[in-house]
Amino acid sequence: MTDRVLAEGTLIGDRLAVHTQTTKPLKLDQAILEYQKRGIRGISVWKEALEGFSAADADAMIRDHGLSVPALVRGGFFCAATQAERQQRIDDNRRLIEIASILNAQMLVLVVGAIPGVALEVQRGWVQDGVAALTSDAKAANVKIAIEPLHPMYAGDKSCVNRIAEANAICDSVNDPIVGVAVDVYHTWWDPDLETQIETLGRHNRLFAFHLCDWRVPTRDLLTDRALMGDGCIPISRILNCVEAAGFRGWHEVEIFSTDHWSSDQGCFLDQIISRYERCYQTSTR
Amino acid sequence: MTDRVLAEGTLIGDRLAVHTQTTKPLKLDQAILEYQKRGIRGISVWKEALEGFSAADADAMIRDHGLSVPALVRGGFFCAATQAERQQRIDDNRRLIEIASILNAQMLVLVVGAIPGVALEVQRGWVQDGVAALTSDAKAANVKIAIEPLHPMYAGDKSCVNRIAEANAICDSVNDPIVGVAVDVYHTWWDPDLETQIETLGRHNRLFAFHLCDWRVPTRDLLTDRALMGDGCIPISRILNCVEAAGFRGWHEVEIFSTDHWSSDQGCFLDQIISRYERCYQTSTR
Repeated sequence: MTDRVLAEGTLIGDRLAVHTQTTKPLKLDQAILEYQKRGIRGISVWKEALEGFSAADADAMIRDHGLSVPALVRGGFFCAATQAERQQRIDDNRRLIEIASILNAQMLVLVVGAIPGVALEVQRGWVQDGVAALTSDAKAANVKIAIEPLHPMYAGDKSCVNRIAEANAICDSVNDPIVGVAVDVYHTWWDPDLETQIETLGRHNRLFAFHLCDWRVPTRDLLTDRALMGDGCIPISRILNCVEAAGFRGWHEVEIFSTDHWSSDQGCFLDQIISRYERCYQTSTR
Repeated sequence: MTDRVLAEGTLIGDRLAVHTQTTKPLKLDQAILEYQKRGIRGISVWKEALEGFSAADADAMIRDHGLSVPALVRGGFFCAATQAERQQRIDDNRRLIEIASILNAQMLVLVVGAIPGVALEVQRGWVQDGVAALTSDAKAANVKIAIEPLHPMYAGDKSCVNRIAEANAICDSVNDPIVGVAVDVYHTWWDPDLETQIETLGRHNRLFAFHLCDWRVPTRDLLTDRALMGDGCIPISRILNCVEAAGFRGWHEVEIFSTDHWSSDQGCFLDQIISRYERCYQTSTR
């Protein structure tokens, strides 16, 4: 990685993090080694990556290699048909907050969930209730909660929060500084209100996370056809400038789900991620 | 089809139309026969369905069978890299307006287009210029122009207009009563502002068309996995009530692209369309 110095005196590499799901074929211990070897200092841990590892062991491995954990991914999934199931989901999130705390993760990222057959605004009410129920646990554990709006194509079955505006409205209602928003360029790039919404999040100190990948043209699959930065149509540098202008100084987390990239050599893929990430800066105005 | 009478004294069947693309395996003459046989009185004609038929012959066939044409589908595609190409696209739309006029179509539906690498708001400017350039032709031909917002998952390559709000903003700018909006439940159902936006369209007499299908859960393909009404998660009856409350009295156009349904018997599929369409009313509050 280059040592080019950013405006704030930090190096480019200081802020690059990769989600374990991006390199899904690597086990957690392999991922830690491969990231560390390349100077990647942040690893966002998917709960699936913890299979076969205790949270304490994972934490020790990660710290021994000088890495930090921006986020545990993914909690949420508050939407279910019955009150009992919804309570179960909240309890599941409590356990994830404990795990995030053991991992020294800055935050737990929430994919809020959605089920067919119930009005989206009703489901957003469930999400608000669920998030509100978690704030005291989150504060006690010193783990932030980041609501991640998902692309509208997931409104049927994955997330009833599809724009930053609705995530921000839930933050308004819950009104606790432990709750904020994760902005992923993949989910939000199309939104005509994106830049004003990012400014709003920044003003309220709610811009907790920034996720990077690209939108392939054409996109061949709704779930696993995300592109490497620069291989799609998202104006990444522009959005990067926008989040920085809104005061964001957190990790730049690369989160790519791609059957194409998963079937390639993961070391080469990580090298590509680094060079494309650097290019996001070179083409930015900062 | 049942003869149940609606509030306004019309029959359910009076307002049902089907897009030729819904029954893509049928040639235009077959589609006309199959629709007519079942009491479907509206046929929205895709330009692809005109292959092998002159517009005048198509018009004669359609009228001879007592059918009407809500729309010619699809014009638009204003977004292109060069000014010369964009002018070419406008000229293509002029020819489509002529064809729509020959078909006695009420409107030409526009899918506005999108290209990677250009800011979406810049592209929406091109769309606005393109639409404005067509208004005098449209008025002379007595053919309305309906801008159809497409789902945000098409922002990379098919449409830079992804919400009713942006379609309405273009109408505001062009400011001509010949220009309005086509609302398709598939593209818009997820929008938290859907109901207020439909009201706005109604207030400005810009709600030109209403398209029906459903969102399959899970959706397996971005283009050709639309569902029959009732087989997905879209609150169709609620949206139907909303457009009627906004003063819409036009056709209810069924537009389903589905490899599954295209591979089935098209007569049976049409029978299913009719029964599912009737059920949209039975579960509505009207």
